Amino acid sequence: MIDCGEGTQRQMLASKVKLSRLNNIFISHLHGDHCFGLIGLISTLGMFNRTADLYIHSHPSLQSILTPLISTFCDDLSYKVCFEPFDPSKSEVIYEDRSLTVTTIPLKHKMPTAGFLFSEKERARNIKREMIDFYQIPLQTIPLIKQGADFVTEDGSIVANDRLTVAPAPPKKYAYCSDTMYWERILPFIDSVDCLYHESTFLHDDLAKAKATMHSTALQAAKIAAMANVKQLLLGHFSARYDDFQAFLMEARSVFPNTFVATDGDTIEF
Amino acid sequence: MIDCGEGTQRQMLASKVKLSRLNNIFISHLHGDHCFGLIGLISTLGMFNRTADLYIHSHPSLQSILTPLISTFCDDLSYKVCFEPFDPSKSEVIYEDRSLTVTTIPLKHKMPTAGFLFSEKERARNIKREMIDFYQIPLQTIPLIKQGADFVTEDGSIVANDRLTVAPAPPKKYAYCSDTMYWERILPFIDSVDCLYHESTFLHDDLAKAKATMHSTALQAAKIAAMANVKQLLLGHFSARYDDFQAFLMEARSVFPNTFVATDGDTIEF
Repeated sequence: MIDCGEGTQRQMLASKVKLSRLNNIFISHLHGDHCFGLIGLISTLGMFNRTADLYIHSHPSLQSILTPLISTFCDDLSYKVCFEPFDPSKSEVIYEDRSLTVTTIPLKHKMPTAGFLFSEKERARNIKREMIDFYQIPLQTIPLIKQGADFVTEDGSIVANDRLTVAPAPPKKYAYCSDTMYWERILPFIDSVDCLYHESTFLHDDLAKAKATMHSTALQAAKIAAMANVKQLLLGHFSARYDDFQAFLMEARSVFPNTFVATDGDTIEF
Repeated sequence: MIDCGEGTQRQMLASKVKLSRLNNIFISHLHGDHCFGLIGLISTLGMFNRTADLYIHSHPSLQSILTPLISTFCDDLSYKVCFEPFDPSKSEVIYEDRSLTVTTIPLKHKMPTAGFLFSEKERARNIKREMIDFYQIPLQTIPLIKQGADFVTEDGSIVANDRLTVAPAPPKKYAYCSDTMYWERILPFIDSVDCLYHESTFLHDDLAKAKATMHSTALQAAKIAAMANVKQLLLGHFSARYDDFQAFLMEARSVFPNTFVATDGDTIEF
């Protein structure tokens, strides 16, 4: 989960995501709309008698804010909340498992803020079922072939790997950049990602307000997307002053056509 | 406002209640589902540049919980949050204005908890327009007549007050009792109220669970309503284990027929 504003637990219960699949929460910065939902979510997970550790990755200050709330409101919490502090001013790998790494992206906002780059790891090649049968490939050899090795038959002839396997789906990259002003220094981190979520709090008519509050306009988000050569741009974090998000879409598409608007409950595939 | 769970600001914005009309919040007890929405609401009121003081009436501990959150998340708050602590173990008038008093009702729950009795004050009598004209009643005499005085004409004859005025609507009383186990000691406080909100977290089949968690069943709430001779009972605070509230209604109506279920966004007139 990235960020956790007030009401996140309600949105999560309304969605089809299982609460038990949640193990890591990445908090971009300590403004209320990005973290006020944590205490309620932590409390509710306790009522469901969760036992697995929950990891919260954030600016170091969050621990001193949340710890007294957890002590006050969550008697005998059935699981452990583990704080994993990071320094938002530099880029570093803050999470890694067998399929994924998460790297911070320093952003420029009113307080220390980091975006997050989710990078899938290269997957093993898919071995063709009929080739296993045809060449009678032994079970213990299969992992090597999935890693790219050729196969040597009993009579010594070499079968090239690309005859035996199919390339896996290319690893995908998703970058989340919110909240931030227009900030070209993020370009190297988000280069060619499959999907970029970039905040666009304002329309470009309100550029002065965007600058004053250190937010971005839809046009600026689209410029960043174009310069970084990303495949798809998702806009979000719209100011409550706007009722209609169509104008954001039109503004951004004038610069970067493959733009979409993220709204509550959306599932985006890429 | 009574209690302020997570997401209250969102519900309030979705309703037709103006945020600027909110001046007093009464917190029954310090469980998360009754107060996690405060910091978000306080923060949002600041973004709307509120200037009027906001009074929060609660157990004394709330101030030490909320103050650090306000300092951390609400830079330069445009208005003052005033904490008005009360002792939930005794009944006292904690709020009064020209039309209303609010009195605490000690409840029995897992932590110090108070319900609230909202009592309208007796209103002035309504003077009949045509009588003002007929007897040429001077402007400065009208307030006295509204308070019940007779009118003495210039020739010294007395016109009885009930010829000049109509009785006002009788003052209404609303009692809010949540969270609490079945607790007959609340009866004197809620006697004959126009509307009683009483929690009913469980159905009576789950009486053991209700006792263990110091909550009430629908049947128990109805018994309290009947014994206190209230005019209307509102049930709420249903456990998330139940999907359907019809069973609560049927159970309570078997003892107290004028029972209703409170659901999100309802407006109840009485």
